[in-house]
Amino acid sequence: MNAQERKAALQNVFTLSGYYNSISGVLGIDQWGGLPDEGVPYRVKVNGFLDDQKRALYFTPEADELTAYYKENPIGENDIETAQIRAFLKQRSFYEDVPKDLFDEFNRKRVESMTAWKQAREAQDFDIFKPYMKDVFELRKQIALALRPNEDPFATMVDLVDEGLDINDISREFGKLREGIVAIRRKIEESGMEIDNSILQQAQNAEDMMTFAKALAREVGYKDSMGGYNEKVIHAFSSTIGPKDARISTAKHGRPTLMMTVLHESGHAMYGYSSNDAVAEAGLFGGISGGFHEGQARFIENIIGRSSAYIHHIYPKLVEAFPAYANIPEEKFYHALNKVASTCKRIEADEVTYNLHVIIRFELERDYFAGKLTIDQMRDAWNDKYEEYLGIRPQNDTEGILQDMHWTGSWIGYFQSYTLGNIYDGMIYNAIRKDLPNFTDLVEAGTFAPIIDWLTDKIWQYGKSVTAMELLAKFSDKGLDAQPLLDYLDDKFGKIYGWNK
Amino acid sequence: MNAQERKAALQNVFTLSGYYNSISGVLGIDQWGGLPDEGVPYRVKVNGFLDDQKRALYFTPEADELTAYYKENPIGENDIETAQIRAFLKQRSFYEDVPKDLFDEFNRKRVESMTAWKQAREAQDFDIFKPYMKDVFELRKQIALALRPNEDPFATMVDLVDEGLDINDISREFGKLREGIVAIRRKIEESGMEIDNSILQQAQNAEDMMTFAKALAREVGYKDSMGGYNEKVIHAFSSTIGPKDARISTAKHGRPTLMMTVLHESGHAMYGYSSNDAVAEAGLFGGISGGFHEGQARFIENIIGRSSAYIHHIYPKLVEAFPAYANIPEEKFYHALNKVASTCKRIEADEVTYNLHVIIRFELERDYFAGKLTIDQMRDAWNDKYEEYLGIRPQNDTEGILQDMHWTGSWIGYFQSYTLGNIYDGMIYNAIRKDLPNFTDLVEAGTFAPIIDWLTDKIWQYGKSVTAMELLAKFSDKGLDAQPLLDYLDDKFGKIYGWNK
Repeated sequence: MNAQERKAALQNVFTLSGYYNSISGVLGIDQWGGLPDEGVPYRVKVNGFLDDQKRALYFTPEADELTAYYKENPIGENDIETAQIRAFLKQRSFYEDVPKDLFDEFNRKRVESMTAWKQAREAQDFDIFKPYMKDVFELRKQIALALRPNEDPFATMVDLVDEGLDINDISREFGKLREGIVAIRRKIEESGMEIDNSILQQAQNAEDMMTFAKALAREVGYKDSMGGYNEKVIHAFSSTIGPKDARISTAKHGRPTLMMTVLHESGHAMYGYSSNDAVAEAGLFGGISGGFHEGQARFIENIIGRSSAYIHHIYPKLVEAFPAYANIPEEKFYHALNKVASTCKRIEADEVTYNLHVIIRFELERDYFAGKLTIDQMRDAWNDKYEEYLGIRPQNDTEGILQDMHWTGSWIGYFQSYTLGNIYDGMIYNAIRKDLPNFTDLVEAGTFAPIIDWLTDKIWQYGKSVTAMELLAKFSDKGLDAQPLLDYLDDKFGKIYGWNK
Repeated sequence: MNAQERKAALQNVFTLSGYYNSISGVLGIDQWGGLPDEGVPYRVKVNGFLDDQKRALYFTPEADELTAYYKENPIGENDIETAQIRAFLKQRSFYEDVPKDLFDEFNRKRVESMTAWKQAREAQDFDIFKPYMKDVFELRKQIALALRPNEDPFATMVDLVDEGLDINDISREFGKLREGIVAIRRKIEESGMEIDNSILQQAQNAEDMMTFAKALAREVGYKDSMGGYNEKVIHAFSSTIGPKDARISTAKHGRPTLMMTVLHESGHAMYGYSSNDAVAEAGLFGGISGGFHEGQARFIENIIGRSSAYIHHIYPKLVEAFPAYANIPEEKFYHALNKVASTCKRIEADEVTYNLHVIIRFELERDYFAGKLTIDQMRDAWNDKYEEYLGIRPQNDTEGILQDMHWTGSWIGYFQSYTLGNIYDGMIYNAIRKDLPNFTDLVEAGTFAPIIDWLTDKIWQYGKSVTAMELLAKFSDKGLDAQPLLDYLDDKFGKIYGWNK
């Protein structure tokens, strides 16, 4: 192959993987509310076929030639080509190094493990899930070792989700964050202030709340023509179906936290949607890493959505739409939405304690893969850490170690993304206010275009064409740094709880 | 290849086409309410890719060998293998004989033609659509001639939709039907009876009507686990997504005709769902022809759903669900649902006049492709036939020749299916009452299982493994015969309009 043919062959892999990913995305949405029970066995076959087809793209005669050439010449003519080469070689070596039998067995076990997890949750008994968790953790470890035999398997797994991040950097920043959050929690306790957030439990009409939440997402910048909504799901998620097609899936309910869920998913979706044309054509559209994806979602949800400026902006409209809030002062609503409290459940946690939930899981995974902890010890270790970091002990396994589906297989080594996203958000928040000193005024005025433009310019437009660390460098001259997040939390919650008047 | 390898290679084509069809089916549903405007250009590429992949299955070295061998040996070890061979050779010769450029141009023109058709409808002006219709009709003709250079192109097109049916047989039976229906319409006019069907225009709560309609479909035999509903569409349709996955798409509204629409689609879906295991594994699941598919839908909708026995069965429940009907006598509702009236719109037509709408279109297509009619003459010919057969003349082109989307390209040569379906239903109705003499009692009692079992046994289980004519032979010793349909109509409407007390 000459240079031009090589370029075309490489591009072809990304074009066709893009098509397969788009199809998988639509089938993924269809699994919720579309796919009937009896259709599942056939769908399993269709999905397996798609996986095989995608794999085959990396083992054509052309792909063999590309591999040989690019291993020696990994730098392309521009960032986009370099990113293609890097992603191509990474995927090819994944397929090459991980024996297909091992991967297939892992996939089979994942399905069994999911079933056992559901049963264990019903019975509130970790012992039911334990043998399956042992299997999937062991298989995941073998996969990591197959990829990089001489490295810490956990580091390898984290790198698959948050490529380029050093696990020691993560551990260091997470440690700093834990200490800082413990200090903030102490100040909150010392404030003696008790926030009543019972208003969040009072459900309004679900259809109306969904309509209102969609209007908020639209105002921020997520237009229906960019993707739209699927409401037949249990868990909220977003899917990048094409370069200009990023969908939101979310269940409807009448509680006001639905607004935050929809804003969160609109952050994911706008990130998935906003790759620039060159990146899109190269087949590199979408988000670069778990952490960056989560960061964009949580920026819209938290930094914007849960800010006092934002609540001030939307509150009159909210009261108009839901007269039940007419007698609730705006500040009371804002405080309810930001009450800090130790609870056992991660997904219900506030901005402060949320990171402790994540850090607990990250530490447990890290210790397991370092051989310092067995699955048999996992429940006690979980409960002990909750007691140590959050001051509460789960009453049963369902509200404890069985609460997340991540450890059924597919998302082992994923949890760090959530807190990495928050750390990125702290850094983004610092950077954006340098360029837009009137950030808070913009939010309060409901003028989001300059903010969205900034995010697009610095982050979103690059899709998967730069690594997470390269992306960080576009708006910060530091590496991973938890301090801005801590500063943000201390400032915001200091104002709420009174040590920062 | 030895015999076993050949079998495996043939099976592989059907297995993989099945996967591609399943994916296309889900993408098709996604186009309604899922796919956002901005996602369309990428979806066009994904669809094109899927078409290419499907085509490529027929041009592997193995496929070449299969073609050479099976052309000489078209009979398999059993019906299913014979059906695979027949379908394989047919599809291969389609790809071989129709130049890809011609087919691609046809597909491009179809899209343009659809846009022009929409504009023409807005403007109520056939002249806007005419040049596009000329193009797609001409291209469709060229495709037919590419397939069978020495045959009537219309016969070839009809054979693509309703394989094995002789166009002369269709013409003869349609002629017989037209005369019979004209006679029935005369008797209706002579009866002097005027049915008031304004009740059908009074909308109830759409959500409640949908719930009620789904319960009816469930009672007849379409369980949610077999497919389920997508309500984000404009036109109703059904999709066979897998051997045990047949979905219904329909818009919700509050008028009682929604019950009939859902019953209609449940007929399509049960047919698509009910292939036996051997047929399903061979990749031949689904319906054999346009006519048989339409026949199954209309059997559930009309022969069951619009019968007096069925209305008697459901009416107490209907009144309970919608108190607005409490003062409407059952007979009045039944009559409203079966009022015979000449209208310009096919999809609003009753069981009697419906076939005249179809026959008009069939005759116009037939005459065009026989060179007896030009597109320039088409509007006048349309209006004249409406005047002749139905006694009314469309007031504008939108309620006339522009009413159906079929002639924008994709469904030229398709209309006959609708009336073929009705003719089959007449024959099925005769046959099923021989085996189940208490057919009417079963319907009135809401005992549908024996009826569904009969349909499954005689028709549905065979999927695409037998031709339409072979299927007819399973329950009738005659060829295509419109007489049973005429007998059914004369009997049913004679009871309603009084000449058959």
